[in-house]
Amino acid sequence: MGLINVHSYLAGQWLAADEGGRPIASAVTGKPLAIAGRASIDTQAMIDFAKKKGGPALRAMSFHDRARMLKALALELGKHKDELYHLSYTTGATKPDAMIDIDGGIGTMLVYASKGRREMPDGHIYIDGELEMLSRNGSFVGQHVATSLQGVAVHINAFNFPVWGMLEKLAPTLLAGMPAIVKPATATCHVTEQAVRRMIESGILPEGAVQLVSGGLGDLLDRLDYQDVVGFTGSAKTALMLRSSPHLLQNSVRFVAEQDSLNASVLGPDVSEASPEFDILVKEVVREMTAKAGQKCTAIRRIIVPQTLIGPVGEAIKEKLENTRIGDPALETTRMGALASAAQKADVLDNARQIAAESRQLAGDQETFEVDGADRAKGAFVAPMLFACDDPDSAQAVHSVEAFGPVATLMPYRDLTHAGQLMNRGKGSLVASVITHDPAVARSLLLDAGAAHGRIYVNNRDSAKEATGHGSPLPHMVHGGPGRAGGGEELGGIRGVMHYMQRTAVQGSPDIISGITGTWIKGGAKPKSSAHPFTRSFNELQIGETIEAGPRTVTLDDIETFAYFTGDTFYAHMDEEAAKANPFFPGRVAHGYLLLSFAAGLFVSPDPGPVLANTGLDGLKFMKPVSPGDAISVQLTVKRKTRRTDEYGEVRWHVAVLNQDGDDVAEYELHTMNQYG
Amino acid sequence: MGLINVHSYLAGQWLAADEGGRPIASAVTGKPLAIAGRASIDTQAMIDFAKKKGGPALRAMSFHDRARMLKALALELGKHKDELYHLSYTTGATKPDAMIDIDGGIGTMLVYASKGRREMPDGHIYIDGELEMLSRNGSFVGQHVATSLQGVAVHINAFNFPVWGMLEKLAPTLLAGMPAIVKPATATCHVTEQAVRRMIESGILPEGAVQLVSGGLGDLLDRLDYQDVVGFTGSAKTALMLRSSPHLLQNSVRFVAEQDSLNASVLGPDVSEASPEFDILVKEVVREMTAKAGQKCTAIRRIIVPQTLIGPVGEAIKEKLENTRIGDPALETTRMGALASAAQKADVLDNARQIAAESRQLAGDQETFEVDGADRAKGAFVAPMLFACDDPDSAQAVHSVEAFGPVATLMPYRDLTHAGQLMNRGKGSLVASVITHDPAVARSLLLDAGAAHGRIYVNNRDSAKEATGHGSPLPHMVHGGPGRAGGGEELGGIRGVMHYMQRTAVQGSPDIISGITGTWIKGGAKPKSSAHPFTRSFNELQIGETIEAGPRTVTLDDIETFAYFTGDTFYAHMDEEAAKANPFFPGRVAHGYLLLSFAAGLFVSPDPGPVLANTGLDGLKFMKPVSPGDAISVQLTVKRKTRRTDEYGEVRWHVAVLNQDGDDVAEYELHTMNQYG
Repeated sequence: MGLINVHSYLAGQWLAADEGGRPIASAVTGKPLAIAGRASIDTQAMIDFAKKKGGPALRAMSFHDRARMLKALALELGKHKDELYHLSYTTGATKPDAMIDIDGGIGTMLVYASKGRREMPDGHIYIDGELEMLSRNGSFVGQHVATSLQGVAVHINAFNFPVWGMLEKLAPTLLAGMPAIVKPATATCHVTEQAVRRMIESGILPEGAVQLVSGGLGDLLDRLDYQDVVGFTGSAKTALMLRSSPHLLQNSVRFVAEQDSLNASVLGPDVSEASPEFDILVKEVVREMTAKAGQKCTAIRRIIVPQTLIGPVGEAIKEKLENTRIGDPALETTRMGALASAAQKADVLDNARQIAAESRQLAGDQETFEVDGADRAKGAFVAPMLFACDDPDSAQAVHSVEAFGPVATLMPYRDLTHAGQLMNRGKGSLVASVITHDPAVARSLLLDAGAAHGRIYVNNRDSAKEATGHGSPLPHMVHGGPGRAGGGEELGGIRGVMHYMQRTAVQGSPDIISGITGTWIKGGAKPKSSAHPFTRSFNELQIGETIEAGPRTVTLDDIETFAYFTGDTFYAHMDEEAAKANPFFPGRVAHGYLLLSFAAGLFVSPDPGPVLANTGLDGLKFMKPVSPGDAISVQLTVKRKTRRTDEYGEVRWHVAVLNQDGDDVAEYELHTMNQYG
Repeated sequence: MGLINVHSYLAGQWLAADEGGRPIASAVTGKPLAIAGRASIDTQAMIDFAKKKGGPALRAMSFHDRARMLKALALELGKHKDELYHLSYTTGATKPDAMIDIDGGIGTMLVYASKGRREMPDGHIYIDGELEMLSRNGSFVGQHVATSLQGVAVHINAFNFPVWGMLEKLAPTLLAGMPAIVKPATATCHVTEQAVRRMIESGILPEGAVQLVSGGLGDLLDRLDYQDVVGFTGSAKTALMLRSSPHLLQNSVRFVAEQDSLNASVLGPDVSEASPEFDILVKEVVREMTAKAGQKCTAIRRIIVPQTLIGPVGEAIKEKLENTRIGDPALETTRMGALASAAQKADVLDNARQIAAESRQLAGDQETFEVDGADRAKGAFVAPMLFACDDPDSAQAVHSVEAFGPVATLMPYRDLTHAGQLMNRGKGSLVASVITHDPAVARSLLLDAGAAHGRIYVNNRDSAKEATGHGSPLPHMVHGGPGRAGGGEELGGIRGVMHYMQRTAVQGSPDIISGITGTWIKGGAKPKSSAHPFTRSFNELQIGETIEAGPRTVTLDDIETFAYFTGDTFYAHMDEEAAKANPFFPGRVAHGYLLLSFAAGLFVSPDPGPVLANTGLDGLKFMKPVSPGDAISVQLTVKRKTRRTDEYGEVRWHVAVLNQDGDDVAEYELHTMNQYG
């Protein structure tokens, strides 16, 4: 096999690596494998391609359109997993490692596709948070919204996850309606290139939505402005260099960093050697040390356990590490593959030496370990190394030097406060795990150490079967952390999309805000429905259209009938004296559910029509009691419409129940499913 | 009167200005007024005082405790408004200007006090967003939470609002549980000092919660770490210098900037000279130009109007500006006071000259205007200046040079797209206003220009009476903007509090998450109530405790009785054939409200007890239809408790309605008010 020529996809063209390319060696054999990069790239053409083609095309799509696009891309990539696994072996990744990368990336896209449909509107303006009342009479209100940034997102990714690393940034970016330029780390960019090729070839993406730079970025970053975003994953050192760029600072370019950190795992003081949690800790640690050969920004670097358990935990981890088969990642029996490159190996060994200077080494003799099916000297193989540091308070390197490989240090704590202090010695991390069965332990450590950690993962016997692992960022949860971890956030559901959108506080009359959000707002116009709204299809219904129904007098008989029928004989409905003594009631009052039921009786149109079902209700507030003799009427207003399936969509109605004086007695949001046509 | 000696409050001591102090002159007379600052300050002692005393004391308080503290501080400051108004006159501020500053600041604190009580839990851990299901069977779930940062917030404020500028940062900071060091701009720090003095003297604040640096900060910023926050308000130039600090960058210190920007006001194409919106625009512009003599970071700098209205708008604004009485701010007849200092005046005139080079000057002859009760030559007075720029596409200065005083430029647009382009020429701003009666105009401009603006303020005839003004940041809405405006956000309700807290993604079993958030979670333990929960007081009720009630068979008779009683004879309940044809139902089914009502009948305990009232309901979902003959039962679980008044608090219950097969048929969250004892 000749050298792989890793192409770039720039301004709509696939361009081969040329004399400016950098060599890539196989992590397993050390032999030349590929070449990537070009002597020069036309960075302005790339930016123009993104901003003039990709951006407008994506922004023309609704959030739901973009979510469907993500799903289609994920399904397309799913068809090509095998070729991606195969390429991944050359990076030192085993099949399970490659699955974390490839299946994990695809899964992330699918979660974003689903959240985009469920949690974002079928339009172009995201509604952020609740309506704010800014005036006494309600003629001036506020609503935060978010719209797509009009620039380009530049994603600078790390070498360890060539596919997931790309997709976990691409999914929220595309969902936000923003085009991206992807720059993978050179060491593994041949895997990324293949995934991008499959996405581009599928024709699913609009032109300009995604570009790929294999090799260097040239002066791209110096051409960005305040509508652009740089998303960076990698070392603290490179992040600092980038974020200090005068151009990025002067132009308020958004910079989101996710950096490796000294992640900790803490065993709770409630755990003994016999507890299931003991085994859970050992399993988590060994998995984090050996998966991807420990090359995960979230991997466990510090294991913090009760003083009395240092010995048993060390023994248990050591035993499992020594039974881990290391070798050619393409072999099915291999449990840990190689590091990504000879340079990484040198770096890991160097950093491990700094840790060793403060610790005892429990496992990981680099001279004697066996490698299956490959030459230990030529590939980037290392044996997993476990250290124990007996004086973690005075130690420095164990809390600050990250050996980005299968390396971790065990250390003892005296009490829970001390455990929290040790967690925080990392000066900010992506994730800490707490293995405990006691919620009070989890709560205490969260209060002491939450401010230093982007994620706290708790596992125990109740969750062990389904827990996703200390080191796995999930699309639902924020990935990133303060301080050493970079101070950035990625993922976290729709939070992650917001990094590629601008939040704007909009203020105006209810009709103005309603026109912007497509949602009727209290105080806005309520034109009368031209026919009963239950007879009008989803497409015919207009935001704000209203019917009024009633009045119906609520009698004492009604209240008693309802009480005996339902069994709800609460004294506020049945006993005048007792009701009067209650601070909320003037005397006997109607049941809240009686009001809801009568309201439905007033507004429901009985015959078959476009309304298929009442699926739920939200935000019900009882505002004023209804006494026997009061007459209630109801206003039903179309509040929001969201397409759901091919045949029907959800209509949210504002329902106001009023008494004979026009006072609100109850209000709520009613949900129905309605046919389109 | 001698010179005011402006003290600092450092590490628990009031320290006078000394030989290191800087002079402050009266804005009105130009005479020496005060001295502020010290030759040296012990910055490490300040940090220690904040981190070792203030932080722990604040974090020991719950959000509700801190909210009550904010309210007390606001009420205390309210008692001392007159002395603050009086001091403000020396800064050039009129009484209405001082009210924006002082009453506005107090009002901001009150809004945060109220939001803290209503929107945050009565505890120490903020719950951010919804629970995330991370597993098929629900044994592993996720919840984002936020906890107080453990450092100190350094607030560097601008000269224009010495009180509001402090309080709008202090309110969210203290609510977050973080101590602050306030550094006002020297020119007006004598007003800030007095407000701080009143707060400290009141004894309401725990020791270490607030410190004040009048004068320079020394090396304070170089001692901060990743748990600290710098909040800056002021010029883009100073912000850039600060944010480029290697120490802040290396340590991932949070830096939030709010910078002056070239804010625009756009008159919609739907507006004619005869429309009420024409007058609204003129009024807004004149107010923004003259309030605080135009020294507002949100003031209107660019007036963008339809080509045909350039003449009339210019005339109308000019007339009002020329009728604005300028003079000693202490005079009741004065409508516009002085700029804050002679240096500001020189700066404004200098910048206005750059704008004049691209424009026609319509108003603002600096040689002839009258000043009431003060010497024009000695005070920092200027006449408001209106320019018209006929070619805004090629102009540069009008979009980029900010004259921080009563200066604005009028410019024409051709169509709505062009108007959006001109808005965006400011390269990011705090606020843009749109004066239109057409929601489609507002929506179109939001889509084109929202990404460049932190706030879009729409006003028209419907909202004019209650609208709060283009230039007024409200505590409810985000204040800040992208690009030129600094890329930061302040205020925005609880969003503003989050700048002083760390978001952490927590994962674990339902019981673990429940222990952290104090909220029962589906899948968590449901211990049986020791007595009917309606007989147990607020304080006795335990999170998770549950009663089960039922079963009750739902008969066809029940359905018909309910239908005729309520009037809800929807075909899905009454007509077997029609119901079967509906995709959601197997045949005739029970009404949703019948299920709710029967459920209440099953779980309600009729006699007087601690449960006072059912106040509402949330998140009702009908999950499976109930057919005649099905038997329903109900589980009522204590989900969350929140203290509300001295006598009772709110209990939120999870209600699950199940059928005879144990399938969920409905679930919802029920709200009641319960007595404590």
